[in-house]
Amino acid sequence: MQNLEKCFFWISVVFLSVSVALVAKGQSGIRLVPFDAVKFTDKFWGARLKTHAHTTLPVCIAQLRDSTSRISNFQKAAGIKSGEFIGTFFDDSDVYKAMEGMAYSLQNNPNPEIEAILDEWIGYIAKAQQKDGYLNTFFTLPHKRDNWEETGRWTDFGRHEDYCGGHMIEAAVAYYSATGKTAFLDVARKFADHMDATFGPGKRNWVPGHQEIELALVKLYNATADKRYLALSKWLLEERGRGYKLGPMWLESDLSDRNCQNESPVASLQNVEGHAVRAAYMFTGMADVSAALKDTVYHTALHRVWDDVVHRNMYISGGIGSSNTNEGFVADYDLPNKTAYSETCASVGMVFWNNRMNLMTGDAKYANVMERAMYNAVLAGVSLSGDRFFYVNPLESDGDHHRQRWYGTACCPSNISRFLPSVGNYVYMVNERDLFVNMYAASGTTIILNGTKVAVSQKTDYPWNGAISIKLDPEKTTTASVKLRIPDWCKSYSVKLNGKAVIHKKVDAGYLSLTKSWKKGDEILLRLHMPVELVAADPMVKANIGRRAVQRGPVVYCAEYADNKTIDLNKLTLNSKNRFSVADGTGILADHKLLQTFIAGKKVTFIPYYAWDNREPGKMLVWVKYKK
Amino acid sequence: MQNLEKCFFWISVVFLSVSVALVAKGQSGIRLVPFDAVKFTDKFWGARLKTHAHTTLPVCIAQLRDSTSRISNFQKAAGIKSGEFIGTFFDDSDVYKAMEGMAYSLQNNPNPEIEAILDEWIGYIAKAQQKDGYLNTFFTLPHKRDNWEETGRWTDFGRHEDYCGGHMIEAAVAYYSATGKTAFLDVARKFADHMDATFGPGKRNWVPGHQEIELALVKLYNATADKRYLALSKWLLEERGRGYKLGPMWLESDLSDRNCQNESPVASLQNVEGHAVRAAYMFTGMADVSAALKDTVYHTALHRVWDDVVHRNMYISGGIGSSNTNEGFVADYDLPNKTAYSETCASVGMVFWNNRMNLMTGDAKYANVMERAMYNAVLAGVSLSGDRFFYVNPLESDGDHHRQRWYGTACCPSNISRFLPSVGNYVYMVNERDLFVNMYAASGTTIILNGTKVAVSQKTDYPWNGAISIKLDPEKTTTASVKLRIPDWCKSYSVKLNGKAVIHKKVDAGYLSLTKSWKKGDEILLRLHMPVELVAADPMVKANIGRRAVQRGPVVYCAEYADNKTIDLNKLTLNSKNRFSVADGTGILADHKLLQTFIAGKKVTFIPYYAWDNREPGKMLVWVKYKK
Repeated sequence: MQNLEKCFFWISVVFLSVSVALVAKGQSGIRLVPFDAVKFTDKFWGARLKTHAHTTLPVCIAQLRDSTSRISNFQKAAGIKSGEFIGTFFDDSDVYKAMEGMAYSLQNNPNPEIEAILDEWIGYIAKAQQKDGYLNTFFTLPHKRDNWEETGRWTDFGRHEDYCGGHMIEAAVAYYSATGKTAFLDVARKFADHMDATFGPGKRNWVPGHQEIELALVKLYNATADKRYLALSKWLLEERGRGYKLGPMWLESDLSDRNCQNESPVASLQNVEGHAVRAAYMFTGMADVSAALKDTVYHTALHRVWDDVVHRNMYISGGIGSSNTNEGFVADYDLPNKTAYSETCASVGMVFWNNRMNLMTGDAKYANVMERAMYNAVLAGVSLSGDRFFYVNPLESDGDHHRQRWYGTACCPSNISRFLPSVGNYVYMVNERDLFVNMYAASGTTIILNGTKVAVSQKTDYPWNGAISIKLDPEKTTTASVKLRIPDWCKSYSVKLNGKAVIHKKVDAGYLSLTKSWKKGDEILLRLHMPVELVAADPMVKANIGRRAVQRGPVVYCAEYADNKTIDLNKLTLNSKNRFSVADGTGILADHKLLQTFIAGKKVTFIPYYAWDNREPGKMLVWVKYKK
Repeated sequence: MQNLEKCFFWISVVFLSVSVALVAKGQSGIRLVPFDAVKFTDKFWGARLKTHAHTTLPVCIAQLRDSTSRISNFQKAAGIKSGEFIGTFFDDSDVYKAMEGMAYSLQNNPNPEIEAILDEWIGYIAKAQQKDGYLNTFFTLPHKRDNWEETGRWTDFGRHEDYCGGHMIEAAVAYYSATGKTAFLDVARKFADHMDATFGPGKRNWVPGHQEIELALVKLYNATADKRYLALSKWLLEERGRGYKLGPMWLESDLSDRNCQNESPVASLQNVEGHAVRAAYMFTGMADVSAALKDTVYHTALHRVWDDVVHRNMYISGGIGSSNTNEGFVADYDLPNKTAYSETCASVGMVFWNNRMNLMTGDAKYANVMERAMYNAVLAGVSLSGDRFFYVNPLESDGDHHRQRWYGTACCPSNISRFLPSVGNYVYMVNERDLFVNMYAASGTTIILNGTKVAVSQKTDYPWNGAISIKLDPEKTTTASVKLRIPDWCKSYSVKLNGKAVIHKKVDAGYLSLTKSWKKGDEILLRLHMPVELVAADPMVKANIGRRAVQRGPVVYCAEYADNKTIDLNKLTLNSKNRFSVADGTGILADHKLLQTFIAGKKVTFIPYYAWDNREPGKMLVWVKYKK
């Protein structure tokens, strides 16, 4: 164990200098410690990362290259193959997202085979790029007409050209960060330069129909220090809500403006409306632009919409976007369980956005939402075996909703695939003299605090046990603050420093701050009391009146058919006297904790919500009837 | 540690054969493992036992012998000194209760000095006993007239002659159990024979004015196997509620019949009424008689009054008897905090009674109440230093209620003094093939299960931490059930057996039962999740409307002035977002856990209720205002 950790520290130190430079720094001065500097030694995320590398990535590669036409579209556009574009106009984005995940995976586990595949694909992409920098295989190849009139490039806000470009940029920055090779980054810059030459003040107006390019351009700015990309990102955000409309697809539906958050200027947003993934990506972009420009002009709007999303439009799983009509938000508190849309991509977006808010403010309330989404709605999106996916994540099922090997619209599998290997991004944040601990997971990292290199290691069985040991090993004694997030689900806790109880300090903005002169071997022992809780929904949520959800620590539980075959789940009634035992799962659920109780003499088993539909199909329920 | 434990086992085995014989066995077949077979290795009870032996016992001895006339009354009655009786008519009982505590302490810590004092006092008592067996120094010595007319022996139900006799019997049985010497037991038998010759069918009628003799006679029966004592006990219980009235003191007050539970036959009791200590001792006696006779005639009444006491007339501390007018029960739900009487003796009585109910039924709900009383109302009765006492235990104070060195009516100090050294009685119960674990405390014992000697040891920091390791070392492999009490405060938990999670079993009658073939070194790891809880009272309790009590595990907390000098405790308002940190106390509170939170920006400290008024005097509050 000791050796393993040392090895991780060594890897971390190597990557530290590269990675930190690529990471956005909020005007708060707080920056994240990038995932490649954080090595998981735990079972929970460690197992997920292993499954991702061994199963999910190969599945994605096979789907993109062998089972669908996504790679061959690039080969055709590159002139290596001939033929029409096959698929949907946004299919390029799936390739980019998978490539982003592959690049992240390389940083965790150097893998020449994966790197070779990336190099090969980057070759196609570079060749597919037009001389002027334009890149989109749907428009550069002949293709079948779809529901909308045939349009040319940049003639319809709704055609996802910027969305695909954004994902391309993210993949390119990831690949550059992983390998230091610039080939892909050059493609990204050329595309961004093309957009910058086409759109902007005195040039053409443009409203991205599916936000994504904004946050991508800030990533490109952080990687290249070219301020034009940041300015373009800000300008694209500012284009919204000014009444611009372009293209048949955009005009097709009355919902378009609302659905794409184009009804008001972004700084004037009052409530969250429309498509959930679009909203989450846009808010992320707004926070990124705000941070990069050290400008607070978007802060008020971000706080307003955050309150609206989190307090009135979010599921207990951290999922958002309840309606399948618009894949998005409808009325406040309208959070049905069986027909919940709660798209996996939107949950990933919640992690991104809340991470940025957390960086912007140093307030743990955002990390709390991030944790809720990560352990529940996001993880539900991929099977425990890593090869099946959910696009839609209801909180109740009649037994007819199942994970699929892939989707025609494959945004969710590829999103999960880039999220998982980079989950280490969410463990720590640093300031000059502050270390923020956001995620609790057995892991090691090395950071710079107050000018001194400090090795940090965590030992814990979180999320199954609330005891967390954090060891600090500074190269030399150094004064700094360690800020421990006290999660929102945690009502009581204790903290020891080198075996001695810490004199109580106020939990400020969700963090308990320990300031001292840190020396080699200092150890913090944090105990978050982690009982089973029966959680009530906001009473305005009709679907959950008279119901409770079972939660322990950050993990929301559900009951499903496989464990409760003789029970009618929707007749089951919990009460305040129910006692729960925590038990180890078996089979595919080994290493996951189950909760069990007796109701009317019958044993009822609850499993983590993220783990449902991994065994035989059947009914599932999160919100169980409750009577005092 | 290992050697220490071995030593304890050795002591335990020596005493086991004697002690078990003296212990009542319910018709359930369940018997307790006596305290002298259970050795605490923990800080919590271990510290209390040490303070008891080093401080409380010497304080009691000095008070009885040097500062008051209690011992000299016996010397006078024995003809060793001359003079009148000085004191109150029930003062003999304090000597007996202290002697009972001294005898128990001898069993924990052999101490020739204490034994010599006991022998000396037993000498006085034996000489003070009349030829016919009568024993009461108030009546055998000349004494000042008091408020009531002068009466002779056995001419007034209200004069506590049987009450004093009962405590004498308890002390005598304890001394016999500790030393094997019969001198004191002979006095007890002679007194009981005298009562049996005087009262009973065809003899005189008698209603004990303060119940105690009933449970004492069952102890004497268990020690001697003489069925007359058991029959007399049952007959005395049956005398109640038949309309008998005797003596000026008894007739003085309209309250007497109600106060002494003499308004209905005991088997017909519907509700709890009257004096709390009398009631608790009577219910204990009823359960003892019931168990010894293997007769269920009192069960229905006991269940009825238990529901009435626990659900409508008990404080969160486990204290009972809210009114100072009658030291007892008044109206249902009338549980004022500032004027709470909640006499320490009544809380000790609650432990006795609930222990008997637990033995009678094997239902942990009684052990839950026992635990509540032990960790809160009972422990509050003695200062942490062991030399100051509470008679009355309010749950709120304006700063004018303080521990005293002694009391004119000294029942409470002496009751605490006999309770503490025998607290080990409440750890385990056994059946032929069942081990019930009721209390969690680092400790060791040896029991017989299924004919096999089994060493049992617990390691835990309970009540500060819910992790409990229980090791079993049977002499040879043996099949039995270990029944782990899942406390009522505990909503969730986990259990491992030799490192493997236990397949969930129903918690039946409050116990989780593990049945297997036990072998050397088997280890159970029970984790009771122990968060801070804000507990609401029954909404019928007016005093607590809009308030919550802070509780963690079995320990009820309070806020007192010493920690919260700038805070108006009664204006303080908790809400559902308050987070509590568990911190170590300092000074006199070292080794005790405090809870701290911030309310309106100010740090508020809560300490265990039992620990209040151990520092500078000031206000104290258990039920704090609460607003969602």
